[in-house]
Amino acid sequence: MFEGAIQDLIDELGRLPGIGPKSAQRLAFHLLQADDADVARLVSALQRVKELVRFCATCFNVAESEECRICRDPRRSDESICVVEEPKDVVAIERTGEFRGRYHVLGGAINPLEGVGPDNLRIRELMARLASGEIKELILATDPNTEGEATATYLALLVKPMGIAVTRLASGLPVGGDLEYADEITLGRAFEGRRAV
Amino acid sequence: MFEGAIQDLIDELGRLPGIGPKSAQRLAFHLLQADDADVARLVSALQRVKELVRFCATCFNVAESEECRICRDPRRSDESICVVEEPKDVVAIERTGEFRGRYHVLGGAINPLEGVGPDNLRIRELMARLASGEIKELILATDPNTEGEATATYLALLVKPMGIAVTRLASGLPVGGDLEYADEITLGRAFEGRRAV
Repeated sequence: MFEGAIQDLIDELGRLPGIGPKSAQRLAFHLLQADDADVARLVSALQRVKELVRFCATCFNVAESEECRICRDPRRSDESICVVEEPKDVVAIERTGEFRGRYHVLGGAINPLEGVGPDNLRIRELMARLASGEIKELILATDPNTEGEATATYLALLVKPMGIAVTRLASGLPVGGDLEYADEITLGRAFEGRRAV
Repeated sequence: MFEGAIQDLIDELGRLPGIGPKSAQRLAFHLLQADDADVARLVSALQRVKELVRFCATCFNVAESEECRICRDPRRSDESICVVEEPKDVVAIERTGEFRGRYHVLGGAINPLEGVGPDNLRIRELMARLASGEIKELILATDPNTEGEATATYLALLVKPMGIAVTRLASGLPVGGDLEYADEITLGRAFEGRRAV
């Protein structure tokens, strides 16, 4: 193998998720030959993320101050909270422009096989927010897979007795998709959820 | 999209070769949640590569001083030079333990489609080394693909008139491979190069 600084960099890159030894080597040589300014920008971006970015004290979205941009926005409704698994789901929903309430980022989904139970997610913090009495609707926007569904079911059981409306994102055919290529479960859900036009 | 420091990091990671927007996002969130010490090690490895690593003044392998470890080693033979495309090829050949001479790293292969001609490779520097008269054999270990073969042919034409023995690595079946799965060109080369046992 290589020696010294180049091997150290290959080792460090190889520790990142989804980067195997070959990719780490290719990246290290790319960086070695890249402009000093490009590498300096990457270094500074890494340092600034660790310095500046934290999780919002209210909703656990990424934030660069005590609260995130969405929690600080006075124009958004305090009556509904949309529960998602990860900060990237907030970004995806924000892109639709369909939701003007607040978020709550769980930090994952219930997954007994990987040892993730309700206590490992920010469910206690969600309950504390719901206890304020201001919230009228809780939208469960966890992923439409086994873990996401389990988490949604768990939260629904917990929250419904509090007299808060609990809704789940609709399942159905992806827009632009082809009916014949839809899997049977999605197609079944689309039938189940069919609406008058 | 995200904002501020986290988006800056996603952008910088997305500029690296082979890292698309989704991977960049996954890496950025991994780094955000990683230990400060891990990120500090990555940052330091990046900075040290740019500070310390350069190309050997003689053979253009990676080096942390004027000359690389191999060029500095007095126990290696000065009579043969093995020509490779990239520093990682030096590592691959060193692992075999079969070669005790010196290397010359071209920095690529002739590739007219990508605008890489002989002038873009360290061929002039190779010629200067050969002019010393000390070298008896030039081993062409460029890749066994179109560009590598073209580069080897070009170098052979250039060097043979100098009275230096020019050899090329053998083509043939990969050891441990299965004859029935070998492509016809490799199998053809293996036949052509067959040896008495």
